[in-house]
Amino acid sequence: MSYLVSKAESVNRALDLAVPLQEPLKIHEAMRYSLLAGGKRIRPLLCIAACELVGGEASVAMPAACAVEMLHTMSLIHDDLPCIDNDDLRRGKPANHKVFGENVALLAGDALLPFAFEHLVSATSPVVSPVRLVRAVGELAKAVGVEGVAAGQVADISSEAVLGGIVGGGSDDEIERLRQFARCVGLLFQVVDDILDVTKSAQELGKTAGKDLVADKLTYPKIMGLEKSREFAEKLSRDAREQLLGFGSDQVAPLLALANYIANRQN
Amino acid sequence: MSYLVSKAESVNRALDLAVPLQEPLKIHEAMRYSLLAGGKRIRPLLCIAACELVGGEASVAMPAACAVEMLHTMSLIHDDLPCIDNDDLRRGKPANHKVFGENVALLAGDALLPFAFEHLVSATSPVVSPVRLVRAVGELAKAVGVEGVAAGQVADISSEAVLGGIVGGGSDDEIERLRQFARCVGLLFQVVDDILDVTKSAQELGKTAGKDLVADKLTYPKIMGLEKSREFAEKLSRDAREQLLGFGSDQVAPLLALANYIANRQN
Repeated sequence: MSYLVSKAESVNRALDLAVPLQEPLKIHEAMRYSLLAGGKRIRPLLCIAACELVGGEASVAMPAACAVEMLHTMSLIHDDLPCIDNDDLRRGKPANHKVFGENVALLAGDALLPFAFEHLVSATSPVVSPVRLVRAVGELAKAVGVEGVAAGQVADISSEAVLGGIVGGGSDDEIERLRQFARCVGLLFQVVDDILDVTKSAQELGKTAGKDLVADKLTYPKIMGLEKSREFAEKLSRDAREQLLGFGSDQVAPLLALANYIANRQN
Repeated sequence: MSYLVSKAESVNRALDLAVPLQEPLKIHEAMRYSLLAGGKRIRPLLCIAACELVGGEASVAMPAACAVEMLHTMSLIHDDLPCIDNDDLRRGKPANHKVFGENVALLAGDALLPFAFEHLVSATSPVVSPVRLVRAVGELAKAVGVEGVAAGQVADISSEAVLGGIVGGGSDDEIERLRQFARCVGLLFQVVDDILDVTKSAQELGKTAGKDLVADKLTYPKIMGLEKSREFAEKLSRDAREQLLGFGSDQVAPLLALANYIANRQN
């Protein structure tokens, strides 16, 4: 757990440096507000841990990890807008559009998206080969493609893990195992999220609880019941770990810590 | 002029193929509605003509040209939203959000942005070196960076020209001249746009005329008067042409045709 906390703090510092407060001030202020609002940083941590799994330095994956978090933050800002989910609360704080207005929130999201690509390319190109970098850009684009935008339901975080594997110098086989691992973990994240939504209060979650019920959204507890959902979560946890067999224990430790955190989180 | 028309038709065909109608249908329908609404295609044409200036085949720049138009279209869709400009008319047709609703229009824009990067990378990587492709991605990201998003006023199309120069195999000196050329042409476009806004009707323009006056926006005719604005346009036209001295006449023809069109357009 302390590994995750210290890595999440590194991500926060890197994000703070990547998007400094500059002109135009209002847009950058709005970008920073949501970007530095202290999310769980699961996506960037997954990206970094994936890089370490294949033997790469954590620092090599940091720009990719920040880019991933920029894209994720952008999608949260836009999802909260009145014309989409009309949510007032995010990460325990007022949503971006409640603080800066709809227009600035929209533009802050629009600015974060291309900046993620710019940051990945400019900050990674000194240490990663152009061939891998081109592949990384394609993977980053997929992470927020049409399916991701429109579906919104299942947290597919496989691109984040693949991205870390690419910049970390992983082989095709290693990258494929990372993709499978992340698919299990992503699904696990969603199942746990659904379980927490029916068992926790808004204060504990830092967002509006019971929202899935109100919105009549299909959730795992609704489809298979709470007990079976918990069993399914355990199975996904085991399946994820299976993908890591054969890697050295030092390399595996970061990803394992992350999977355990996701399986056992309470908010 | 016939060169521009035939090239614009090639761009339209390429865009049609790049974004096929597929699941999720509603989002793709909305993406295609605005993307294929028949704009002037000045940005993609500039990208292609820049590629030809440095001796590259037009086809090499086509994915970059499409990516540029996707980003431009995305910014138009979002600009027209009620929380930004609240415009009902675009390219002579109802704005995207008037046809598909605000939520779909927002998501269609959000989907076009990363897809532009994905398309550039996947369709260009077979014919352009990874080193140039990485540089192209950085330039594409800049084309829609924070400044572009927030300023919105001046049509900076220098990135589009630079992008064409990069994928076309241009030298650093050639690319720098393309950037200067495009800066002049971009400013020229804006000056002509401002002049047309005060001298033409909505029907002729295919968008709301006199809007700059109503919105109390600073325009060239308002700052320097109509006559001086026309003189400024002529000077910019000459400055742009100066950047093309030294290139072969065949290579220069496409960019010259484009500059002439921009200087003399009536809508």
